Amino acid sequence: MSAFAAVDVIRVKRDGGTLSDEQIDWVIDAYTRGDVAEEQMSALAMAIFLRGMTSAEISRWTHAMIASGERLSLAVSRPTVDKHSTGGVGDKITLPLAPLVAACGAAVPQLSGRGLGHTGGTLDKLESIPGWRASLSTSDIQSQLEDVGAVVCAATSGLAPADKKLYALRDVTSTVESIPLIASSIMSKKIAEGASGLVLDVKFGSGAFMKTLDQARSLASALTSIGADHGVPTTALLTDMNVPLGRAVGNAVEVAESVEVLQGGGPADVVALTLALAREMLALAGLDVDPAAVLASGEAYEVWCRMISAQGGDPSAPLPTPAHVHTVVAPSSGVLASLDAYAVGVAAWRLGAGRARKEDPVQAAAGILCLAKPGDTVTAGDPLLELHTDTPDAVPAALAALEGGFTIADSAPEPGPIVVETIRAEV
Amino acid sequence: MSAFAAVDVIRVKRDGGTLSDEQIDWVIDAYTRGDVAEEQMSALAMAIFLRGMTSAEISRWTHAMIASGERLSLAVSRPTVDKHSTGGVGDKITLPLAPLVAACGAAVPQLSGRGLGHTGGTLDKLESIPGWRASLSTSDIQSQLEDVGAVVCAATSGLAPADKKLYALRDVTSTVESIPLIASSIMSKKIAEGASGLVLDVKFGSGAFMKTLDQARSLASALTSIGADHGVPTTALLTDMNVPLGRAVGNAVEVAESVEVLQGGGPADVVALTLALAREMLALAGLDVDPAAVLASGEAYEVWCRMISAQGGDPSAPLPTPAHVHTVVAPSSGVLASLDAYAVGVAAWRLGAGRARKEDPVQAAAGILCLAKPGDTVTAGDPLLELHTDTPDAVPAALAALEGGFTIADSAPEPGPIVVETIRAEV
Repeated sequence: MSAFAAVDVIRVKRDGGTLSDEQIDWVIDAYTRGDVAEEQMSALAMAIFLRGMTSAEISRWTHAMIASGERLSLAVSRPTVDKHSTGGVGDKITLPLAPLVAACGAAVPQLSGRGLGHTGGTLDKLESIPGWRASLSTSDIQSQLEDVGAVVCAATSGLAPADKKLYALRDVTSTVESIPLIASSIMSKKIAEGASGLVLDVKFGSGAFMKTLDQARSLASALTSIGADHGVPTTALLTDMNVPLGRAVGNAVEVAESVEVLQGGGPADVVALTLALAREMLALAGLDVDPAAVLASGEAYEVWCRMISAQGGDPSAPLPTPAHVHTVVAPSSGVLASLDAYAVGVAAWRLGAGRARKEDPVQAAAGILCLAKPGDTVTAGDPLLELHTDTPDAVPAALAALEGGFTIADSAPEPGPIVVETIRAEV
Repeated sequence: MSAFAAVDVIRVKRDGGTLSDEQIDWVIDAYTRGDVAEEQMSALAMAIFLRGMTSAEISRWTHAMIASGERLSLAVSRPTVDKHSTGGVGDKITLPLAPLVAACGAAVPQLSGRGLGHTGGTLDKLESIPGWRASLSTSDIQSQLEDVGAVVCAATSGLAPADKKLYALRDVTSTVESIPLIASSIMSKKIAEGASGLVLDVKFGSGAFMKTLDQARSLASALTSIGADHGVPTTALLTDMNVPLGRAVGNAVEVAESVEVLQGGGPADVVALTLALAREMLALAGLDVDPAAVLASGEAYEVWCRMISAQGGDPSAPLPTPAHVHTVVAPSSGVLASLDAYAVGVAAWRLGAGRARKEDPVQAAAGILCLAKPGDTVTAGDPLLELHTDTPDAVPAALAALEGGFTIADSAPEPGPIVVETIRAEV
């Protein structure tokens, strides 16, 4: 009888109705067990995409996805706090942020993913460090959290299996960009990972999945409301992703830039966003510490080195360098007025920094260095972008992606703040 | 790259856009070959369901489904004309109609389906005749058309394979009741079957797939416009399906009622609809013959006997009778004011006349005889409905389906006409 019931659940949503708790629990459980077929779930996902879900439906859907698997329970003496970014171009913030917040006294269990599409993946970036490994057992995670305070690793397989299945399905059926589906996917993973406090970096702009501030605000509101419904204090920052974050976009290049930040340097926007997120995480952890002072002290860099070593990496080893570097120069003189995050993200992807399919490898050395950022004065012939790749055949596709991706003008608009809005959930 | 292209096609429709001819041709061909996955097509079907299709898209979609397989080409000396019904309760019209129109001088190649859900299937009904077989080769069809003038048989497997695949998919993904998908499915089959003229019985009301006259009109308009685009003269009659057609609903009982009509008797509504459809078919065939006179002459019944014999059936053999008959009596005296086609259809289905899954068998003797029709005066205790089944366990479910399915009052509303509107396509 399962096919008949799936048909009924799909029909309710197709016709704009509200799914009951029982229908949601049943469909997620049956899908996880394989009793609801992929083609039935994709029809339901498209109906959800086009009809939406109420806040109560989203919360229950999340609950059912958490219930589809195990829930990680980390017993750590320090207060734990977690962060998630909806993904952007040059978004390496987890790398300096996790050791910084650990150096301030919290425990940061950062279960992360790999990149798909034009945004990079945190694990892909860290894997450019010789020896570093992403897979840890639950007891490894727990002891590293206790000893070092920060872990960035792959999610263990038993967490929210329904989300894992649904995420892969959405990817091939054009049902990714749906706020109910995105919000429940993020929160089911984070809550199953045992987050006791959560800071979300919800990005908007050309390089983000949410193109407008309004969309990002809707997503942030869905995310924080799921957090509240599940008793997890959740804060969302709405942050600008129209321009790549920092100067480095790729894998090894982003690690290098993160190390600069941890050593007291690095681009101002990366430092500012790292500190803003750290402040929110420390507030949720109940720690009254100034992260700027801790960053300046070098303690965060020390935690970084211990964190990398604990996972088999050599923090002092040279990072991979590309076989081929192609430089894009300024075609005229003036001020760099715009640098489109999406164009740069796609170009880095084409160069080999990202993958088109889950099973593809990425190139550790591939990526882009943005030698100028909007507002910088440039002279015709100045290097603007450095394209790094091991496969020079990929350069034409990257250049095509960059077509129209930057403009040089007489003046540039004043840059806005990175953090545009903060939304806190009442628990 | 096929998954990427499928994603793009889905996205266009998801966002309310219009698919190009190339996108439609590609997606149907790739789906037929298995390069577009079932879960991708179901997401697209749901997007089509909710976003709709333009008339040009529907026509191209139909064209692509025809192109996915063979096209039957029947060389017959008589003018050929075909009929299709969107399905109703007690709709046995093909049985008297095909031999009648053949007796009038046309060739009627009636490739038919089996029932699914609450509406019966023409082949299921005919299979209650001992010896009759539904499967014919193309050369059998051709010679029987030449000799007898009428064939009712199963569609050969090579016709519109994309439609066959998509139809099965829609059934399990709640994407059946979409006018673009219904219209393209019907017309791709009929055009692939080589119809040179087509009369459509588009039903509306509780027992039909289209519940309202407006929906039926939209479907009829989509159907006739596809016919016109493909050079097939097409006429649609909008007919009332709020009350079961005739008195018999099921398999053998509908054959018996059809024979009554062919022998000059039978219920008035069945006779009226048979003649109305015959007139339209003869008009398309360019034959100036009065079907009422031919029916009265007994020639149609002669063609029936030859048609059944040609397919191995014995037209004079007794039809199967049920192991169990349960009679529903009038609970009070008055006039039968309503008899709901859907309730009777579901009850007959529960008794074993229809199937829940494609692979289920049907009971030849199962069904319902409506001993009273709306407008008839009844006395408390009079038999109203006879439930026929070989599985008496099914009676309670049938009675539950009939709950509220008829009303007895002081008077009944005047019955409206069966044929409410006629839509003709300009070719």
